[in-house]
Amino acid sequence: MNPQLEPTSAIAKTSLGATGDWFDHPVHAYPHQTDYAGIVWHGTYISWMEEARVKCLQSIGIGFADLVAMGCDLPVVDLSVRYHRPVQMGMDAVVRTRMAKMDGIRINWDYQIQSLDGIELYVTAQVTLVAVDREKGKILRQLPPAVREVLMKLQAE
Amino acid sequence: MNPQLEPTSAIAKTSLGATGDWFDHPVHAYPHQTDYAGIVWHGTYISWMEEARVKCLQSIGIGFADLVAMGCDLPVVDLSVRYHRPVQMGMDAVVRTRMAKMDGIRINWDYQIQSLDGIELYVTAQVTLVAVDREKGKILRQLPPAVREVLMKLQAE
Amino acid sequence: MNPQLEPTSAIAKTSLGATGDWFDHPVHAYPHQTDYAGIVWHGTYISWMEEARVKCLQSIGIGFADLVAMGCDLPVVDLSVRYHRPVQMGMDAVVRTRMAKMDGIRINWDYQIQSLDGIELYVTAQVTLVAVDREKGKILRQLPPAVREVLMKLQAE
Amino acid sequence: MNPQLEPTSAIAKTSLGATGDWFDHPVHAYPHQTDYAGIVWHGTYISWMEEARVKCLQSIGIGFADLVAMGCDLPVVDLSVRYHRPVQMGMDAVVRTRMAKMDGIRINWDYQIQSLDGIELYVTAQVTLVAVDREKGKILRQLPPAVREVLMKLQAE
Repeated sequence: MNPQLEPTSAIAKTSLGATGDWFDHPVHAYPHQTDYAGIVWHGTYISWMEEARVKCLQSIGIGFADLVAMGCDLPVVDLSVRYHRPVQMGMDAVVRTRMAKMDGIRINWDYQIQSLDGIELYVTAQVTLVAVDREKGKILRQLPPAVREVLMKLQAE
Repeated sequence: MNPQLEPTSAIAKTSLGATGDWFDHPVHAYPHQTDYAGIVWHGTYISWMEEARVKCLQSIGIGFADLVAMGCDLPVVDLSVRYHRPVQMGMDAVVRTRMAKMDGIRINWDYQIQSLDGIELYVTAQVTLVAVDREKGKILRQLPPAVREVLMKLQAE
Repeated sequence: MNPQLEPTSAIAKTSLGATGDWFDHPVHAYPHQTDYAGIVWHGTYISWMEEARVKCLQSIGIGFADLVAMGCDLPVVDLSVRYHRPVQMGMDAVVRTRMAKMDGIRINWDYQIQSLDGIELYVTAQVTLVAVDREKGKILRQLPPAVREVLMKLQAE
Repeated sequence: MNPQLEPTSAIAKTSLGATGDWFDHPVHAYPHQTDYAGIVWHGTYISWMEEARVKCLQSIGIGFADLVAMGCDLPVVDLSVRYHRPVQMGMDAVVRTRMAKMDGIRINWDYQIQSLDGIELYVTAQVTLVAVDREKGKILRQLPPAVREVLMKLQAE
């Protein structure tokens, strides 16, 4: 576990290899993300995980908005989250994600949300996406080849 | 000031006349809407005001999703909010809205968010919408006639 | 499956028994809850499930804010969600919840989010809470007796 | 107008002087921040503006969570937003903020949300905060001296 600052696109590709394929998305707990208990509200982590996923795809050249413009969407079909300890208001944390094995048309992502120094573990999670044809509203039998090729690379790392 | 339970479509039309044209949308302050201070986060009221606006339009027969499907969008172009006192977690409140005078293509809404008994005033606000052609992304010179006709009725009340 | 309008406190208790112990929380998909795809964003359901839980507790006499004021918090420690089909903007839906078996200090809730007529199933989910001493920030060995007693009743139904 | 990458604390102080006292907070439009129209939902900007404010205070040595821990809160009492053009999903933007003149106990902030190259203007806004004694729930007659001193410096720049 070796957290790092938000990488530029170029550094990200290297670091994905270097750290055993985790992508790191740093976050800060702002007031609007907290609840009455002074800690990050449990649903806020879902936003953070989406942000990390979008940034990770971007780091390997897949713009999420471009994908959507091409008619391919990647909705979440499964989500599981375990909350180990809360992130307090004003704290920094890092959302680490990596693509796990692709299972047919299912794209699985693992998550660890932890302190910047990697000592505290706040959240672990898994998210599964499928590719959907936006026009038909149907699950694609296979990913657009260009997307698949790039994702396979991510998986190999 | 005479708050009331969420009206059905039929009652709403009557009550708009009866109470001098306010539409009432009851809300409850849930944990996800609070911040570290145990009160409703200041941005949450923007959601509540949108909900009241959508319900008010629905009560006079304008489905917001139908409007969008017809190619007409009503984005917010101006927003001003004054926070008088906070709504605490677990409290009920009522979001009152009414359409103020239409100013050419600008549709103005007034808001008062208050306690159920009408004694405490939490928030006052104004929101301005314009009608936009979704395809062209341009402001419409005039509202779709069917929409305009219904809105004029709302204004007259 | 027999959806219904939001029950008053009195009706809720009856209906919990009548329908095999589901509590129904009706929702409407507002613009602020949608994403670029015109459907409810996947994290929004977490808010809806919290609302249903708070309302269900309220229907058996447990005010969430009162609980917190007593020094007892009920944070989410586990969450899993399966997305079957999306709720579109402008649609109505019902969030059904029931307390599953209490497992020591873990309070488990089941969820089904479905169309008002009960024909379409949008989301199924499970959420686990634990009771925490707010001051000490530690998990309670047991629920406050008054809370436990009421929850047991809910479970028995 | 000279947008820049998110500054470290040290650079921020310099840049505040260099650019005529605007603080720049870069943002990216993620799916969870969009609505059915594929653009950033109008309430999302309120979150972005809060983030910019918190980061700006942090850059001059005021930790928002520390302030709260000291018993001083800074709630928003007035908010006005003008929406010039929408930020589309996937776009980068910069939220620029600066403290305007302090008006007794009112702390005023100006905002401009614009494209990274400074050519497109998306949103202009003003936000007013007051300092509140958290325990008493009352507006402070004056800011904590240490806070006031630092803020005065920000204002002078």
